[in-house]
Amino acid sequence: MALMEAASLEKSVQWHDDRGVTFTPGFLAGSGWCGFKSKKQDLALIVSDRPASVAGVFTQNLVKASSVAFSQEIVANGTARAIFCSSGNANACVGEQGMVATQGCAALAADKFGCNASEVLVAHTGIIGRPYDLHKAGQGLINLQTASGKHIDDAIALSILTTDTVIKQIAITVRSPFWKGDLHISGVCKGSGMIAPNMATTLCFLTTDACINSPLLQNALTSAMNRSFNRITVDGDTSTNDMALVLANGAGSALIDGGPAFGHFCEALEEISVALAKMVVRDGEGATKLVAITVTGAKTEEDAACVAKTIAESPLVKTALFGNDPNWGRVLAAAGRSGVSFNPNLSQLSFGPHVLFHKGCAALFNADQVHKYLKQSEIVLSLDLHAGSKSATVWTCDYSYDYIRINAEYHT
Amino acid sequence: MALMEAASLEKSVQWHDDRGVTFTPGFLAGSGWCGFKSKKQDLALIVSDRPASVAGVFTQNLVKASSVAFSQEIVANGTARAIFCSSGNANACVGEQGMVATQGCAALAADKFGCNASEVLVAHTGIIGRPYDLHKAGQGLINLQTASGKHIDDAIALSILTTDTVIKQIAITVRSPFWKGDLHISGVCKGSGMIAPNMATTLCFLTTDACINSPLLQNALTSAMNRSFNRITVDGDTSTNDMALVLANGAGSALIDGGPAFGHFCEALEEISVALAKMVVRDGEGATKLVAITVTGAKTEEDAACVAKTIAESPLVKTALFGNDPNWGRVLAAAGRSGVSFNPNLSQLSFGPHVLFHKGCAALFNADQVHKYLKQSEIVLSLDLHAGSKSATVWTCDYSYDYIRINAEYHT
Repeated sequence: MALMEAASLEKSVQWHDDRGVTFTPGFLAGSGWCGFKSKKQDLALIVSDRPASVAGVFTQNLVKASSVAFSQEIVANGTARAIFCSSGNANACVGEQGMVATQGCAALAADKFGCNASEVLVAHTGIIGRPYDLHKAGQGLINLQTASGKHIDDAIALSILTTDTVIKQIAITVRSPFWKGDLHISGVCKGSGMIAPNMATTLCFLTTDACINSPLLQNALTSAMNRSFNRITVDGDTSTNDMALVLANGAGSALIDGGPAFGHFCEALEEISVALAKMVVRDGEGATKLVAITVTGAKTEEDAACVAKTIAESPLVKTALFGNDPNWGRVLAAAGRSGVSFNPNLSQLSFGPHVLFHKGCAALFNADQVHKYLKQSEIVLSLDLHAGSKSATVWTCDYSYDYIRINAEYHT
Repeated sequence: MALMEAASLEKSVQWHDDRGVTFTPGFLAGSGWCGFKSKKQDLALIVSDRPASVAGVFTQNLVKASSVAFSQEIVANGTARAIFCSSGNANACVGEQGMVATQGCAALAADKFGCNASEVLVAHTGIIGRPYDLHKAGQGLINLQTASGKHIDDAIALSILTTDTVIKQIAITVRSPFWKGDLHISGVCKGSGMIAPNMATTLCFLTTDACINSPLLQNALTSAMNRSFNRITVDGDTSTNDMALVLANGAGSALIDGGPAFGHFCEALEEISVALAKMVVRDGEGATKLVAITVTGAKTEEDAACVAKTIAESPLVKTALFGNDPNWGRVLAAAGRSGVSFNPNLSQLSFGPHVLFHKGCAALFNADQVHKYLKQSEIVLSLDLHAGSKSATVWTCDYSYDYIRINAEYHT
């Protein structure tokens, strides 16, 4: 009986791998072509059929696109109706005309859908330093129609890409004893390098039909992003245009007003964010594998994340991973320069199930078996610091010849 | 007359490109073969003919070789007679036997030269995690003879290398109105990646015949290293064995006891350290060019160095440099995530003589000319933050296919 009661307090999550933002009831979307990209669709519009609570996290780069400042202000207001996103031109480092163009994008979209420009979030991604042609944005909006369904999800996911090689979206249905009926969360994102060929990079848009106020939504998003998009790295470079937004329109019956319902909502939002973030790493420039760096036994979660991130960003670790080489010395040397205090003589390092280093010395391991393990497309490196009970995972990819090719052979 | 007086207060430096540690009077050296490397010489011994003041700076990596702790203790004593350095085995991450081997190296060298083991500094470089065979060190010492001259300088410079492709040494003669006669400083160093193939990396040994006490010598070395070896990056990874040592034996007539004499000594020590540090970057793994990142107009020198280092370590900047691409957006985006506050709309970025970005926008520049400039083997990127009057330069190299090859194709 006790077991059954415990089970009944758990949430359940159903995954929909092939769906995106319009899977959530009350959301429509449309895509179009402005001409920022030579041929492909480059405009995405996501619209809620009613005012929605909004939350966002933004790049911490000092060099910011105007879309970042503009959307931050809307998030501060707490309510929004739509997200306008165009790809191909970052509208960054273009001086004061940047904000004029951003405001223009919001006004044009608001005009089309009969809402206020102060309810339209704007995101841009693409080449830095090139003047943004507002006329093109207007052209893209003219024939744009909104709808819902798998077809439109795919079109949106495609429209926001730059150098990505695959679309990145997912949706979940979440049940919990702490709310009524089904709660839906859907998401789409893009990103492949910080920036490939001078692109300004990661964007993530989430929709949910939960009924939740914007301060709670902001808490949930900040926490989810700290454990997902803020824990991935392709090359350690952050962009001028990074942005993650969530719209919660309350179209469903799930009321999230704190307590255990909020806890379950936060968990679900984190789970879908991690799934999306991992798609970005898997599609990292030149990446041949997805690598989870898990640090356990840390004093704090921040310590664990810091050590994991230092390892995840080390060019020497990333090249060794490309070479399928069990080079534990590089991993340990990276951990040692992270700034986090631990005793190397107590720590243990494993590649998958294989222990490579423990108690200050190399462990006895079968190099052929480890080499074989490293050849898989998804691998796990685990470092136990033996300094506490906290842990964190950072996802990274390897550095290949293609990483150099993609980033060196491009000409601005 | 005023001009002549000013001129007479300046120091003069004469450079000796082909000389190394024994150029300094009162220093002898010898090289030998222990067998840590399969064929090449792998043992270097530098000896002062009298007790010398000593100073050192050491890796800040938490994962430290025992040679680091051992030599730190000797530096704390203030006096030393010799430096023992073997290459091919880092004697790092090998548990408690590491310190036993390090102490053994000092004892064997002391026994050979009739000094005390507590006067012999020990440095190791090479593969991490492999037990150090003290018997081999003893073998290498048996036939070792010390001498001075160009031939022995070259042998020492060669003996300390691991994956370096060229030897790195230089010597200077310095005259100043604030001391008598000639003051000599000579140096040798090694380093190519943090670590190439799991190697534990940068070492720098300096000798001088100045008469200077160890606290002043330590101040001078710390300051020189902060502006030279601490301002270079190949891949941002720091090693378990990094060490820079200076021995000052007072064999010359220059007394450095503070004031303007100390100022001139510090300048000279910094100049020779910068020259040696740049050799390391020029020989960086896969490097095709030496790149100086100069940040000016910063509030503090630390700010300038921080921005320069963030740019210098950015994989996207380094791959663009390999591709000879005037990708100013990547440089600016890296500066923006450095954590240093500045106004991008006031800053100006130049590649050599070409201004690429100013007042928040792309400047008009001739892309072909910049491309041609970037093809040179030594280039300068200058970023003026317009936030103050301080500056700093960090030296880096580009990321090439060879960087990936060298670091991925190695198998531990």
